[in-house]
Amino acid sequence: MARSIDLAVIPGDGIGPEVVAQGLKVLAAALPSDVKLETTTYDLGAKRWHATGETLPDADLERLRGHDAILLGAIGDPGVPSGVLERGLLLKLRFAFDHYVNLRPSVLFPNTPTPLAGNPAIDFVVVREGTEGPYVGNGGSMRTGTPAEVATEVSVNTAYGVERVVRDAFERAAARPAKKLTLVHKNNVLVHAGHLWKNTVDRVAREYPQVTTDYLHVDAATIFFVTQPERFDVIVTDNLFGDILTDLAAAITGGIGLAASGNINPTGEFPSMFEPVHGSAPDIAGTGAADPTATVLSVALLLRHLGYEEQAGRIEAAVTADLAERDGTPRDTDTIGDALAVRVAGSVAG
Amino acid sequence: MARSIDLAVIPGDGIGPEVVAQGLKVLAAALPSDVKLETTTYDLGAKRWHATGETLPDADLERLRGHDAILLGAIGDPGVPSGVLERGLLLKLRFAFDHYVNLRPSVLFPNTPTPLAGNPAIDFVVVREGTEGPYVGNGGSMRTGTPAEVATEVSVNTAYGVERVVRDAFERAAARPAKKLTLVHKNNVLVHAGHLWKNTVDRVAREYPQVTTDYLHVDAATIFFVTQPERFDVIVTDNLFGDILTDLAAAITGGIGLAASGNINPTGEFPSMFEPVHGSAPDIAGTGAADPTATVLSVALLLRHLGYEEQAGRIEAAVTADLAERDGTPRDTDTIGDALAVRVAGSVAG
Ligand SMILES: CC(C)[C@H](C(=O)O)[C@@H](O)C(=O)O
Ligand SMILES: CC(C)[C@H](C(=O)O)[C@@H](O)C(=O)O
Repeated sequence: MARSIDLAVIPGDGIGPEVVAQGLKVLAAALPSDVKLETTTYDLGAKRWHATGETLPDADLERLRGHDAILLGAIGDPGVPSGVLERGLLLKLRFAFDHYVNLRPSVLFPNTPTPLAGNPAIDFVVVREGTEGPYVGNGGSMRTGTPAEVATEVSVNTAYGVERVVRDAFERAAARPAKKLTLVHKNNVLVHAGHLWKNTVDRVAREYPQVTTDYLHVDAATIFFVTQPERFDVIVTDNLFGDILTDLAAAITGGIGLAASGNINPTGEFPSMFEPVHGSAPDIAGTGAADPTATVLSVALLLRHLGYEEQAGRIEAAVTADLAERDGTPRDTDTIGDALAVRVAGSVAG
Repeated sequence: MARSIDLAVIPGDGIGPEVVAQGLKVLAAALPSDVKLETTTYDLGAKRWHATGETLPDADLERLRGHDAILLGAIGDPGVPSGVLERGLLLKLRFAFDHYVNLRPSVLFPNTPTPLAGNPAIDFVVVREGTEGPYVGNGGSMRTGTPAEVATEVSVNTAYGVERVVRDAFERAAARPAKKLTLVHKNNVLVHAGHLWKNTVDRVAREYPQVTTDYLHVDAATIFFVTQPERFDVIVTDNLFGDILTDLAAAITGGIGLAASGNINPTGEFPSMFEPVHGSAPDIAGTGAADPTATVLSVALLLRHLGYEEQAGRIEAAVTADLAERDGTPRDTDTIGDALAVRVAGSVAG
């Protein structure tokens, strides 16, 4: 475990800088005093694009590559055409740094309102493939803008790419109490990609006899998310299905204000990137209404990835306690960040 | 409005024949006495495939083409490899008969349990494109089964295909009280297809100034389905997103036991096909536990499509009343079908 962390910070747009500030506050509170934290802030996102037209120049990508990890707030504003920053910055980072495990835990914390009736026990994690599928950008259009236009999007799936993320998911499932892995795909329609995914899971499953495996079509999975979320433990799925399912997962566990994610390169060849699932929410930027909890939980994932398991656990425990004890009075971004930092620091002392 | 209906019936597998029998019972009860109903049953589905290896021979397709409409129960059993009947029968019918409007209304009926807390007022309809997108079967794999396998799935979208379904959705929105149309796509990632969809909606919108339009990414849409389903009126979306969203829509409105659908060829060139959203549910086949309501509601869509608006409304009113007055005692398939047929017949007399 490194005794120093060289962190790249991309605060981004809208509420991004606000929640990142709180994430850094809690990170500082969590780190052992002898661990040196160095941060470098990168000006990337809508502001930079408006000013210079740049999304992610090669020079920035090169510099980012040298860090231990990246903390990202949120990217985008309504003035940027849809897709420009997503493809040119966010997805470019995920692909360039081979973030093939997009890790998204879903836990219904105590005292947290869910739109679901009853009080289901939700505690699963989605292992979303991060470098393939319909996200590869392998599409195009011809006769664009005419009545004869044809637009395509190609989902590319490789045995190499599927197997490595499936193995990662099995490892995670094997380490959890329930030891259950559900593959979500649509193999009755997307038969080629579906076949590759299903076969890979079936084959790797033989190496993990202690893990129970299950298969669900993506449409059926959304039903179970709202009727029986307890049935899930680890879910492994493709890039697009994972995108959809994890927003739904966030919704049933108290909203995207609480949903953390890690874009992980498990080999360590490239820096992994941690970010809240939510967007830049320009409508509430500057009002103090942004909940920094998702970013703080992303910082916990970051620490776990870097080997600081105990510190990660402490942040998660602080969030759990903070949510359990909140009384419904609205708190601003800073107040929540302070409360979490104090709890984390207190648990160090104690 | 035709004074006779020449109906093709594909009962299919599992609970398919059971729910179709009830659908036909209610259809007979709803039809004016001078309308001649003729039905032809087609033996298609898993049983046929097991016996002959056939999914949908050309001869059957040709004969089916001659009918006014098709009522389908459910297709499939666990003994058939995934994809064989979906691609070879169900999707083949949808594509061959150019069912470009896959119509899926979502209504939370009175006295119907929803997994959502509170009692949201849900009344929207999804207009799912039915002949394009990732469903075209335009994929393949190379080096199949080896560590170097590459599997692709191509989503094909045409201006022709998108515009016609978007126009249909605008027509439906304009005819509803709320007059609101939401396009759901993922145009920040699937930029080519997304651009075509978004541009088409924006362009056609100018012809419908009375309709309010809105855009949501598919991931965000799933959030609103569980947190604010009231916000939706008409949703237009691609084949795959529509598949996912309508299962979720069914889940929040009491389950797939109540979800009806129409695969509609609006031009009337080919017969339209009506089917419950649920599958063949082999686990409950033969037990009488299947709820035929989704099929009965699909019969209402069928009647509306054929011009029997009043009769369609009567079936929907019968379902509404039946659900409102049920007391929670479990009823078997036949009992529900009888109750609905009696109500429909009674409302004719009255
Ligand atoms: C912003 C967008 C490109 C991104 C995605 O689709 O992956 C987001 O929705 C997410 O889930 O992180
Ligand atoms: C069975 C399957 C091919 C089908 C689909 O994906 O369209 C079903 O899920 C549906 O929604 O009608």
